[in-house]
Amino acid sequence: MPCFFQENLSQDSFTLSSEESKHITKSLRLKAGDYIWITDGKGTLAKAVLTNIFRDACTVAITERVFDDKSKQKQLHLAVAPTKNPDRMEWLVEKAVEIGVSQISFIICDHSERKNVDMNRLQRIAIAALKQSKGTWIPKLKALSFSQFLQENSETVADKFIAYCDDKAQSIEISNIRYQQKDAIFLIGPEGDFTSQEVQAAKEHHFQQISLGEKTLRTETAALFVTCCFALSILT
Amino acid sequence: MPCFFQENLSQDSFTLSSEESKHITKSLRLKAGDYIWITDGKGTLAKAVLTNIFRDACTVAITERVFDDKSKQKQLHLAVAPTKNPDRMEWLVEKAVEIGVSQISFIICDHSERKNVDMNRLQRIAIAALKQSKGTWIPKLKALSFSQFLQENSETVADKFIAYCDDKAQSIEISNIRYQQKDAIFLIGPEGDFTSQEVQAAKEHHFQQISLGEKTLRTETAALFVTCCFALSILT
Repeated sequence: MPCFFQENLSQDSFTLSSEESKHITKSLRLKAGDYIWITDGKGTLAKAVLTNIFRDACTVAITERVFDDKSKQKQLHLAVAPTKNPDRMEWLVEKAVEIGVSQISFIICDHSERKNVDMNRLQRIAIAALKQSKGTWIPKLKALSFSQFLQENSETVADKFIAYCDDKAQSIEISNIRYQQKDAIFLIGPEGDFTSQEVQAAKEHHFQQISLGEKTLRTETAALFVTCCFALSILT
Repeated sequence: MPCFFQENLSQDSFTLSSEESKHITKSLRLKAGDYIWITDGKGTLAKAVLTNIFRDACTVAITERVFDDKSKQKQLHLAVAPTKNPDRMEWLVEKAVEIGVSQISFIICDHSERKNVDMNRLQRIAIAALKQSKGTWIPKLKALSFSQFLQENSETVADKFIAYCDDKAQSIEISNIRYQQKDAIFLIGPEGDFTSQEVQAAKEHHFQQISLGEKTLRTETAALFVTCCFALSILT
């Protein structure tokens, strides 16, 4: 059963967006009486029956709603330097949403190869990935400087980690991390790595320096690796 | 220091390929006396000095060689149904090589959305990823049917797992896997999942049925997730 996105799921009957309606009629060729899932990206997944099929204005009636309470779930906040190639960021957003992430912050660091991020495009990628994986919560996406990020998260209660390629002798290896809090924040640097000053500033904000093993991974690969490690820790 | 690929590293001095030479002269603008890494994808990583710079025929002299003995290392064999969209397979190959994989088999199953795979292109992607990550071993890549795959690996000594979305009650969750052997094989199915007959056949070949958690992941995401889980288990 395919899944669609609708920002507001408070009403029991409504008309789907033109984009979603076209997908229903032209790609999927669904008919009145067929059932679909609809997510609002704010925790609600609704089951709905198609009541009328119009090329760009299909109507639905919700038959049930399930609310996914995330307050008890372990939350991952990925803070990653934007990649020079935008495809790589889009790939990361899609994969991280599939596997599980609650927030993705694009951090402009000293060695960042990119200073601007097309947040609208990444938001659309995130919504598409959410629908595809029948997820319930769209991650918060934002772009900010490294120092703003440290400041905004200074009071956040979470295990905080910064992945650093240099100085491995001082790093805890990711396999040896023991999560103390419910939530976690991982800082992943640009291809040129964080500067030692950035690492020092992060440590002053209670970030622990970690290593992801022997290999040096691309930024988006490293970010996805920690996403998988965190998802695995939730299953355990 | 950038890394290049050369199939045969037995000689101490040789000429790099036209492709690698052009990259040196036009993109990187290296000069005689600069050092580079060269991998042969068969375990040897050599350090070499550029002796002559010609636009498409740079010459090098090897100053040292290191052999990465993989016979003692844990090996991952990813067996995955090819995706309909070839980009997704290319992402998977690139990321799996970065994180660590020794063999990728593209398995044509009952529900496979694609029957043919451009192995030459994927081989080039793998080599590029190997150079980028300064790896030493290029994974073996092949495409074969599900039953051929089971037959070819029937004598292989490895922990063998098949990820199945259905029938989760009978599955071991990936976080509860305990590796008994040095090596592992993971079977990842197409978007339509394996058939119950395929799962039964795999079990008769000593594959254990596993679940990757609650979420249903895209084929290439699932394959990357198990690659990360295996890499993490090696670090532990």
